[in-house]
Amino acid sequence: MKKMILDLDTGVDDALAISYALGSPEVELIGITGTYGNVLVEQGVRNALAITDLLGTPVPVYKGLSHSSTTDSFKVLEISEFIHGKNGIGDAEIPDSSRSVETQSAVDFIIDAVKTYGKDLVYVPTGPLTNLAAALKKAPEIKDEIGQVVLMGGALTVQGNVSAWSEANISQDPDAADYVFRSGIPATMIGLDVTLQTLLTYKHTQTWRDLNTPAGTFLADMTDYYIKAYETTSPHLGGCGLHDPLAVGVAVDPTLVTTLDINMQVDTEGATRGRTIGDNTRLNDPVKTMKVAVGVDVDRFLDEFMGRITRLAKEV
Amino acid sequence: MKKMILDLDTGVDDALAISYALGSPEVELIGITGTYGNVLVEQGVRNALAITDLLGTPVPVYKGLSHSSTTDSFKVLEISEFIHGKNGIGDAEIPDSSRSVETQSAVDFIIDAVKTYGKDLVYVPTGPLTNLAAALKKAPEIKDEIGQVVLMGGALTVQGNVSAWSEANISQDPDAADYVFRSGIPATMIGLDVTLQTLLTYKHTQTWRDLNTPAGTFLADMTDYYIKAYETTSPHLGGCGLHDPLAVGVAVDPTLVTTLDINMQVDTEGATRGRTIGDNTRLNDPVKTMKVAVGVDVDRFLDEFMGRITRLAKEV
Repeated sequence: MKKMILDLDTGVDDALAISYALGSPEVELIGITGTYGNVLVEQGVRNALAITDLLGTPVPVYKGLSHSSTTDSFKVLEISEFIHGKNGIGDAEIPDSSRSVETQSAVDFIIDAVKTYGKDLVYVPTGPLTNLAAALKKAPEIKDEIGQVVLMGGALTVQGNVSAWSEANISQDPDAADYVFRSGIPATMIGLDVTLQTLLTYKHTQTWRDLNTPAGTFLADMTDYYIKAYETTSPHLGGCGLHDPLAVGVAVDPTLVTTLDINMQVDTEGATRGRTIGDNTRLNDPVKTMKVAVGVDVDRFLDEFMGRITRLAKEV
Repeated sequence: MKKMILDLDTGVDDALAISYALGSPEVELIGITGTYGNVLVEQGVRNALAITDLLGTPVPVYKGLSHSSTTDSFKVLEISEFIHGKNGIGDAEIPDSSRSVETQSAVDFIIDAVKTYGKDLVYVPTGPLTNLAAALKKAPEIKDEIGQVVLMGGALTVQGNVSAWSEANISQDPDAADYVFRSGIPATMIGLDVTLQTLLTYKHTQTWRDLNTPAGTFLADMTDYYIKAYETTSPHLGGCGLHDPLAVGVAVDPTLVTTLDINMQVDTEGATRGRTIGDNTRLNDPVKTMKVAVGVDVDRFLDEFMGRITRLAKEV
């Protein structure tokens, strides 16, 4: 069975990504590595432990780096708090886990997992790429040993969400993302190009609420907070973007998206710092190490998303 | 037979575009409208008259607007002169035409041609989109009456060539380009995404030189100047980009490229003025009015390009 690691700044859509992964019998979620972004790394790790308990599968959680590769510290942006709530999960309240974070670091866990599972491992980062860049610097050979990276981040054919050219996850650590993109690791980028096409509404969350289970109520409360934030930030969309869950969806079933084979970079200098774009110097290189999703089967993904998560939340 | 209008700032690759069109029995080149960019509009019109004479088909030439929709005048950039030569055609010398430019304006000719040929008309602009925007403002209904626009300009998945985010043609008049992109006119964008993959070398131009005809010698001299400029500006490419001819190639045979259906805009404000990018507000609109080329059959295009132009240059 395919082994999966999620690298999360557990936030609302990160929590939905956990739910999608645990609701997918095709993969085994062997660990969650924590990063910063939607929340501080400590809060994200706390949320990941609590959510996996609530969903009935106590997945091990590893703490990752707490700030970007080019800064000394990290502070949650006001907009992140507005979208994800003060506690990162839409201010929905769930009990702390009785478990603790693992003692091994996220970076060492990633490297060990690649060594153990090789091509059977898919790594799904849905926050800044700080942990993966650090792992690649410590053990460069993992780029050839890992199965696949399916990352949520970036925007190739559409505008960004923190600026006209930059998407939130990439903008947190453009240098780390550029390092990953140029490293040659096989990676699929699930960016705003597709995630702003996969929208969830109150009608969907009502399904979870109607389950009348602790998990169903939690998912509905948390996600409604997120949809409400989207009504303010992106009223034209008519729902909330399913960013992180789509990355998990594609890691489970790559046929959910159509992709463009292209060698990518992240602009680290100049006005467009944080932009994800094709690397012109490798435009005519016949070897393409990345795929960028440019189309998505919206209906099929939403069906899978609702089906998998609803089945899971019904049981717990 | 399909009718074609070329809208050119006749430069080197514009001259190759004329040659490709005249070498294509599938289309009739009914007129050339002149714009500014690689050269002043007067020089471009002069070149278009002279080249069509040299190639044995005296196509009518119409003078278009001489500067962008937001400026009072236009001056050729130093980099344009470096790439295309002082006279725009690589400083190759060919006789002036005995013909004059037509008295009708380019804008009125475009509108009349749409009224006359409707869906049989393909309009191929390979410079700034100033003339087309003006025609659309004067006669908005042509957007529904024209067959297709196939434009050379922009860069969606790769960096620009006048800045990290802006391509030369679009950067000359971002407002006009944005007007065209949002107008709803059916348009295919042939940008740097694909034109930097279709490269010509001295080996190719030698074929024309070996013809020992006036046209063959002219094409070889002119294009060698252009290849030499590319050796300075883009040494990593190993040839010159066939920007404008690829737009003609696709207008003749759309299967030369793979395209992405997407509603586009041009950034007209902020740091990224001049960037071509998806319009997020129309991302989920089921109607897509533009196609952006993201892949090209390089070998087949180069075969068509060399075959058509060489056959033509052999005869004249």
